[in-house]
Amino acid sequence: MITLSFKTAERVDIVDITDLVIQEVAKTSINSGVVNLYVPHTTCGVTINESADPDVVRDMKMHLAKMVPQDGGFRHYEGNSDSHIKTSMIGSSETIFIEQGRPVLGTWQGVFLCDFDGPRTRKVFLRIKED
Amino acid sequence: MITLSFKTAERVDIVDITDLVIQEVAKTSINSGVVNLYVPHTTCGVTINESADPDVVRDMKMHLAKMVPQDGGFRHYEGNSDSHIKTSMIGSSETIFIEQGRPVLGTWQGVFLCDFDGPRTRKVFLRIKED
Amino acid sequence: MITLSFKTAERVDIVDITDLVIQEVAKTSINSGVVNLYVPHTTCGVTINESADPDVVRDMKMHLAKMVPQDGGFRHYEGNSDSHIKTSMIGSSETIFIEQGRPVLGTWQGVFLCDFDGPRTRKVFLRIKED
Repeated sequence: MITLSFKTAERVDIVDITDLVIQEVAKTSINSGVVNLYVPHTTCGVTINESADPDVVRDMKMHLAKMVPQDGGFRHYEGNSDSHIKTSMIGSSETIFIEQGRPVLGTWQGVFLCDFDGPRTRKVFLRIKED
Repeated sequence: MITLSFKTAERVDIVDITDLVIQEVAKTSINSGVVNLYVPHTTCGVTINESADPDVVRDMKMHLAKMVPQDGGFRHYEGNSDSHIKTSMIGSSETIFIEQGRPVLGTWQGVFLCDFDGPRTRKVFLRIKED
Repeated sequence: MITLSFKTAERVDIVDITDLVIQEVAKTSINSGVVNLYVPHTTCGVTINESADPDVVRDMKMHLAKMVPQDGGFRHYEGNSDSHIKTSMIGSSETIFIEQGRPVLGTWQGVFLCDFDGPRTRKVFLRIKED
């Protein structure tokens, strides 16, 4: 199991980690297999979406805040129930195939760490397995 | 890795692909294992839900449009931020077990390709692995 | 494949099943690997979130009901389209790593069965695989 660490910069920070995932897969010299990503936090998830236009991430942050406002009449004493709810909506894990030594991503796809309660240092666990 | 292709018919089209997944698993003659599904698009996902009554899919399409309207004050120049956001809410992958040569689905479960920015030709990658 | 059964107590019941997952992993004596969880229902999912303060689950139930109300103008004759939609938002499966004979969960993480149309007896399938 590989552990990657990231420093996020804002309360809600959606960070493109695609290059790091590609690098970790390359290091293993595995040609064909699978890479599992897992985020061990409860207010931070991982998703796959467009990495070309940063406005996609901007729109996603804005609209998630509209759907799940921080001030949503919540009871949890830490005041971050919105972050917990968004995490369960986005999910804590992803499974990506490996072919020819690289994660198989679509043309526009990137891998994003979604911190919903930053800024903090966040971890992602990777499991890279040969077929 | 197996690639399946689908032509979708509407901007938002949720297509039952269960039979094709069952067929691909059957072709491999694998008795026990796992099938991973992965959608290499950023405005199209995959989910598991009820395949018996088409009104479930109809209600899902209608309500997702209510939660994430196309005209949501977005900035992304392609005008399909709603499609990107729905994709991250639904997810890009699924993992289904295989027993006795078949995907293990509940009585009412089917596998659905969720095109949120069609109509287009969409791909689903399958990885079928023996235990 | 291991099958766990749970009796839920309310229409929307989010049940902490972490200890049972830990026990099943321990029984296998697998040191390093992966555990896949799969829910074979269409109105019940599985998620990973905070298990320390029960108010997190309470807030999640409340806010999901706000985002997807039971009386949302749906057509599906069973009157549980909200339950189906929440299930696709939360997801039907999770993949958790195993290290040193235990599921690798973050400090605050627990595994939760999310029944959106209870009370019922619900199943979770587990596949525990050595690396």
